[in-house]
Amino acid sequence: MKAVWFENRKITLTAVPVPEPGENEALVKILLAGICTTDTEIYQGYAEFSGIAGHEFVGQVWQAPADSGLVGKRVVADINCGCGKCDWCLCGDPRHCETRTVLGIRGKNGAFAEYIAVPVQNLHVVPDTVDTLRAVFAEPLAAAMEITQQVHITNSMRILVLGDGKLGLLCALGLKHFSSRVMLAGRHAEKLAIAENQGIDTLQTAEYGIRQAAFRRSGRFDMVVEATGSPTGIRETLELVRPEGTIILKTTSHKPSEIDLSAVAVNEIHLLGSRCGDIDLALGFLANNRIDVLPLAEKIYPLSRFTEAFAHAAARGSLKVLIDPTQSGESASFSVK
Amino acid sequence: MKAVWFENRKITLTAVPVPEPGENEALVKILLAGICTTDTEIYQGYAEFSGIAGHEFVGQVWQAPADSGLVGKRVVADINCGCGKCDWCLCGDPRHCETRTVLGIRGKNGAFAEYIAVPVQNLHVVPDTVDTLRAVFAEPLAAAMEITQQVHITNSMRILVLGDGKLGLLCALGLKHFSSRVMLAGRHAEKLAIAENQGIDTLQTAEYGIRQAAFRRSGRFDMVVEATGSPTGIRETLELVRPEGTIILKTTSHKPSEIDLSAVAVNEIHLLGSRCGDIDLALGFLANNRIDVLPLAEKIYPLSRFTEAFAHAAARGSLKVLIDPTQSGESASFSVK
Repeated sequence: MKAVWFENRKITLTAVPVPEPGENEALVKILLAGICTTDTEIYQGYAEFSGIAGHEFVGQVWQAPADSGLVGKRVVADINCGCGKCDWCLCGDPRHCETRTVLGIRGKNGAFAEYIAVPVQNLHVVPDTVDTLRAVFAEPLAAAMEITQQVHITNSMRILVLGDGKLGLLCALGLKHFSSRVMLAGRHAEKLAIAENQGIDTLQTAEYGIRQAAFRRSGRFDMVVEATGSPTGIRETLELVRPEGTIILKTTSHKPSEIDLSAVAVNEIHLLGSRCGDIDLALGFLANNRIDVLPLAEKIYPLSRFTEAFAHAAARGSLKVLIDPTQSGESASFSVK
Repeated sequence: MKAVWFENRKITLTAVPVPEPGENEALVKILLAGICTTDTEIYQGYAEFSGIAGHEFVGQVWQAPADSGLVGKRVVADINCGCGKCDWCLCGDPRHCETRTVLGIRGKNGAFAEYIAVPVQNLHVVPDTVDTLRAVFAEPLAAAMEITQQVHITNSMRILVLGDGKLGLLCALGLKHFSSRVMLAGRHAEKLAIAENQGIDTLQTAEYGIRQAAFRRSGRFDMVVEATGSPTGIRETLELVRPEGTIILKTTSHKPSEIDLSAVAVNEIHLLGSRCGDIDLALGFLANNRIDVLPLAEKIYPLSRFTEAFAHAAARGSLKVLIDPTQSGESASFSVK
């Protein structure tokens, strides 16, 4: 099969054997895969991964020896594959299993290919009412919604999402259903408009110099979501959050951050790391049209034009760039809008 | 009166007028004051303070126009003086009042002097059963105990306190009453012995290279208290805490810290800043002899020898150095032990 191999900051389109699913795995044909900022971080050295990258996808089950009823179903997947034996796994949450593999990120091939092998227990069947283009957002939307399962959010909480990238937008769109006072701050008028069209207050900023403007509107925030994707984003959040407030850390950068921990101690700030979430929760939001993710989809490329797609995804200001491995040869890409 | 003036990294013993207490203030005669690591940070530029430093003290009320029943009483004090009007102050917690002054740290003179003026509402009468040498630990012990009011600590929680300085010792001694699995890691055998004598498991380390040794004994910890006093201490804590575990940030350094926020996000770590605590809670622990703070007291100096005392306090490995402004002239210092 065709696949995209990441290694030592090189991306190679190559032919590899179709994966052999393990005993409790399914072979899944990829219908659509998303390029995530984490993929661009992986390319730059994050997680020291080599192999087939890609962890956001919708597929169709092709073989499932352990559960033949799955064959033909459209599925999305949890990306963490646990050992099945440690305390985390036995509690049904392999996201923090110490010896886990992670699809396309750690020790296991991902979705930038024609097929992927995935543990059956990681699969979630996509409801018929959610089309494939929407369903490809299930994984990143689950990551955004994870915040709502970590923090007790009330309707009056003043929440600022910092960063209008794909994850920032999904965080704002998800949090909107938990608090009526969500604001999204970012640099791109076009992206902010996506949030505004779904009822979110926005603030356009030049280089996150937003303190004065945000304060005028809201005062300090009860919660600030750091989703800038930049290692320097954390600095700004410390000025924007109220004492004893919460900062959610979503950025996974390959570079270290510099931070004034005195301000954290003196103001007794909560900093809370946040990663993958509940795929079923996200599918439920998509099935009920509580969030419209379509405006986030920008362009679909065939697998053969991955390098071009990757450059597009890495460009500042891009929205979600997708790969469709079912398109053959050098067929043209097409814009979603 | 005699006082110690901090300004631009200079310390000057000087004569200043006895402070005039404001309408709701008391004039308090200082009986004993402690030098805190924060004082040495202030000297190096932290909080940009100039004035009379010192925020740990026991005094005797000399004048109290608003509450004459206090006169003659031995007292300790909350260090945060709120505006009395904002939401924080109206909720009875001026610690995060935006326009607060802080005794000896921000906008208000402190305790390295013969007298101090303090808002009456900040004063806590010291029980007769707590002698002055013990009572001077009320403020730092309250800061240590603050952790127990921020986090729901259970008896089985594996807790590591990193740093065997004065605050680290007080944290370990306080947390011991909430969890039976508290470990203190530090570099100084003599200090660790103070904790060991009160039933705490300890681990002597060379430059915090403690990961392997700590893991062998306990695995990763549910909670790690960063009390090293060093801006680099945070790095080690991230390797020691379990996924979804909690790191308490106690260090207030004038230098920024470098931190890998990806590890925080991926492992969904809680970082929680922690500062001043409940003085009455600390006085209660002292009155009931639940914590023996006396082994932490190292030496008492007269005010006239403050510079020498300050150098002693700033020296690596020192325990609590105290100032007794009631000792006149050049009288000799004396060791507590």
